[in-house]
Amino acid sequence: MASPSDFLLYDTPLPAPNPRRVHIFLREKGIAIPSHRLNLQKVQQKTPEHFKRNILGQVPVLRLPNGAHISETVPICEYLESQFSDAKYPKLFGATPYANAIIHQWIRRIEQRITMHVGQVWINSHPATKVVSDRMGMKRFADFGEESKARYLQQLKWLDKVFRTKAATTASGEVYVADLDPQEASTKVESIGFSTADIVLLCQVDFGTAIGLPIPAELTALHSWHSLVSKRPSVAVENGGAMKLMPRL
Amino acid sequence: MASPSDFLLYDTPLPAPNPRRVHIFLREKGIAIPSHRLNLQKVQQKTPEHFKRNILGQVPVLRLPNGAHISETVPICEYLESQFSDAKYPKLFGATPYANAIIHQWIRRIEQRITMHVGQVWINSHPATKVVSDRMGMKRFADFGEESKARYLQQLKWLDKVFRTKAATTASGEVYVADLDPQEASTKVESIGFSTADIVLLCQVDFGTAIGLPIPAELTALHSWHSLVSKRPSVAVENGGAMKLMPRL
Repeated sequence: MASPSDFLLYDTPLPAPNPRRVHIFLREKGIAIPSHRLNLQKVQQKTPEHFKRNILGQVPVLRLPNGAHISETVPICEYLESQFSDAKYPKLFGATPYANAIIHQWIRRIEQRITMHVGQVWINSHPATKVVSDRMGMKRFADFGEESKARYLQQLKWLDKVFRTKAATTASGEVYVADLDPQEASTKVESIGFSTADIVLLCQVDFGTAIGLPIPAELTALHSWHSLVSKRPSVAVENGGAMKLMPRL
Repeated sequence: MASPSDFLLYDTPLPAPNPRRVHIFLREKGIAIPSHRLNLQKVQQKTPEHFKRNILGQVPVLRLPNGAHISETVPICEYLESQFSDAKYPKLFGATPYANAIIHQWIRRIEQRITMHVGQVWINSHPATKVVSDRMGMKRFADFGEESKARYLQQLKWLDKVFRTKAATTASGEVYVADLDPQEASTKVESIGFSTADIVLLCQVDFGTAIGLPIPAELTALHSWHSLVSKRPSVAVENGGAMKLMPRL
């Protein structure tokens, strides 16, 4: 069995939301993997050497002990879960195939409904990305960016409603993403608890906050979930600093 | 162990690209699951009854023998792979954790680089969706839709280049999506072969073709992959009919 030090994570010190997913995941698992940081300002991710590790010239990338590479944050995390699967490591992709499917179901929903809109704001109407768009010759659609803000906030509202509904029937009032689906009383379904779906949502809404789209104060059920997850040691250790370099809207 | 007939797939007879993924997957596995078709024109997916199965009122949804439900096509397929895992069933999510991670890596890339652009064309500038946008009060951004066409075609070009590069170093010339990453000669990496990543890409580019954005003729390496996958019995059985109801651009 490989040990954590046999792996290498090509990473970036910038507070981008996607690498942060992997950092939180690793802290939750208690695995310390050596990292090699690429400087994105110096475009170190677009060298011929790095394109051999990641065909798109992106980070993060996980180098395996045999020299192969895996990219994209969720597959990196799930691969590591398969390699560090003793009882001492918490399961963040579910303990059963059902839980695993539901976690992936929610990750896709978050990516389609949350990540997408906030991403469109970021690339179309955020002043901080203008210089990059200009350099790459990428057209910006300011009106679509503005609409994406409204759609993002609409999705947060929907999530708040879903968290509120579930919290009302949960004794502790503490609800995690993978347990949000409605269940008929007659169906005995295992509770899944904290999972990678929470990490993905947390990184996304914190990115939203960092670029000037905080969770509105009245969405109290969503705020409750956010506080619950943010006080976990894997997140609290960041001391609120993970996203502080981001430019606001 | 549950048998296929213990499951129920809430489905739609429309040629939408996402349910088609599940249909091809099931034929590849050789699993016949009973289905209950909802009529989307009659908005049968937005009934209180269906919202209990899928919190977003979407199809497809897989009902499990215990009455629980799983949504989103990739998690549905992967759950079924876990339930029908005897040697007689082909593995479409990889035979190892590495292969599984690479398949998911490519699925995310396809969703972010292919699905997203063709989806933006569909909802912003395709005449067939105008009536739905109007009914739902959703603003359309025609210029962004036009730009998404160009971006979609740019991504197909990129894919063509990637397929071409890999085919040049593959004895048979037959390349599947999950084998597209560059590998250093010194690294011994298993070949993955046909997988769910091919199914996802196929459904996406066929949807593109159906709405008037076919793969340009000069992208011959991408066409080779498309022919290779389209002649599989699981796809050929559709007799080109799966997408024929789609309105063209």
